[in-house]
Amino acid sequence: MDGVGGTGVDPATVDLLGVLAYGELTAFERLASDARLAPTIADKAALATMAAAEFAHFTQLRDHLAKLGLDPEEAMAPFVRPLDEFHDTTDPSDWLEGLIKAYVGDGLATDFYREVAAFVKDEDTRGLVLHVLADTGQADFAVSRVREAIDDDPAMAGRLALWARRLVGEALLQAQRVAVERDALTELLVGGSGDLAGIARLLTRLTDNHTARMQALGLQS
Amino acid sequence: MDGVGGTGVDPATVDLLGVLAYGELTAFERLASDARLAPTIADKAALATMAAAEFAHFTQLRDHLAKLGLDPEEAMAPFVRPLDEFHDTTDPSDWLEGLIKAYVGDGLATDFYREVAAFVKDEDTRGLVLHVLADTGQADFAVSRVREAIDDDPAMAGRLALWARRLVGEALLQAQRVAVERDALTELLVGGSGDLAGIARLLTRLTDNHTARMQALGLQS
Repeated sequence: MDGVGGTGVDPATVDLLGVLAYGELTAFERLASDARLAPTIADKAALATMAAAEFAHFTQLRDHLAKLGLDPEEAMAPFVRPLDEFHDTTDPSDWLEGLIKAYVGDGLATDFYREVAAFVKDEDTRGLVLHVLADTGQADFAVSRVREAIDDDPAMAGRLALWARRLVGEALLQAQRVAVERDALTELLVGGSGDLAGIARLLTRLTDNHTARMQALGLQS
Repeated sequence: MDGVGGTGVDPATVDLLGVLAYGELTAFERLASDARLAPTIADKAALATMAAAEFAHFTQLRDHLAKLGLDPEEAMAPFVRPLDEFHDTTDPSDWLEGLIKAYVGDGLATDFYREVAAFVKDEDTRGLVLHVLADTGQADFAVSRVREAIDDDPAMAGRLALWARRLVGEALLQAQRVAVERDALTELLVGGSGDLAGIARLLTRLTDNHTARMQALGLQS
């Protein structure tokens, strides 16, 4: 097998790089846009700093795709609709919802991509993927701001917990669509996990990490 | 005179750095946000690249303020309302309006800041201001995309010309407010220009450049 476009790169790796690249580009766009909602200049600058880090990750992934002889736009194309739909259906209505999206949503996505990355054979690609998945500081920032807000007004914890659940629901919906449409990516994950018990363990790990993030925020998962 | 907060920096220079810093931060935010409107992934990435450059400028200005012993947030604070109001009243409704805003609006602001910078005594500050005002590539990009669109559909030229006029109107409104409230900055510009004839020449230069930009777009100014 010659790989995608005769490059020797298998389709699942192209998909992983493509979804990550478009994911970083949209994460950049949305974080930067959510910076509008920031209550202070310092908060705005903090969110903008994280957005700029996501953009740097996007350029690294795009350059890596090009170096492998692949067309970055073609690699990203299949993931435009699911990622845009995820963001369109989870547009934060205030600053705290934006922070929770950055922490809970990106946390879930990051955990998932990290699991997939473990099955990627090419070492350069695996190294880059793990690098772009490293936390850009948004976790600590989001946790401290959300906890402060809930301490000030405990009544808002219910609304924010519901928001987090909606985020997870929309993310799963789009993930399912991708799984159905992108056979190679699904096969990599299922094949890599070994069997159904392996998939079940993977889901348990994702759920446990999500619960830990919700607890860090002081929210019921 | 000890300058602002005993730093030896005169109030007009602090104001210039403050308005530029907040201007870059909001430009970043709006460009990144307008990237949502991009028709292709390549256009989206191009706008995101410019936004990231604006963000780098913001951090340079912020660091320069801090190096001078000034509080960046305090320096930016007087310009939050006028800049936010400008952006809120000129939210582009489509991709082309966003491009015209990036080209015509930023072009006008850049010309103006460059005029002010000429009167700044501190060489480091003047050098940094001229550096952050350098074009990040958005001019060529905007011109080629807008011209293509008008070639495809000449009927839209009228609407886009009106949009550009509205941008200028809103920018002048906010500039007037700033002039009234920030005596030191106004004094620097008026004093530097010499007299009313100097101010008139400055306005002529700004108008000429604006007309040239509109012509480059193929629009009536």
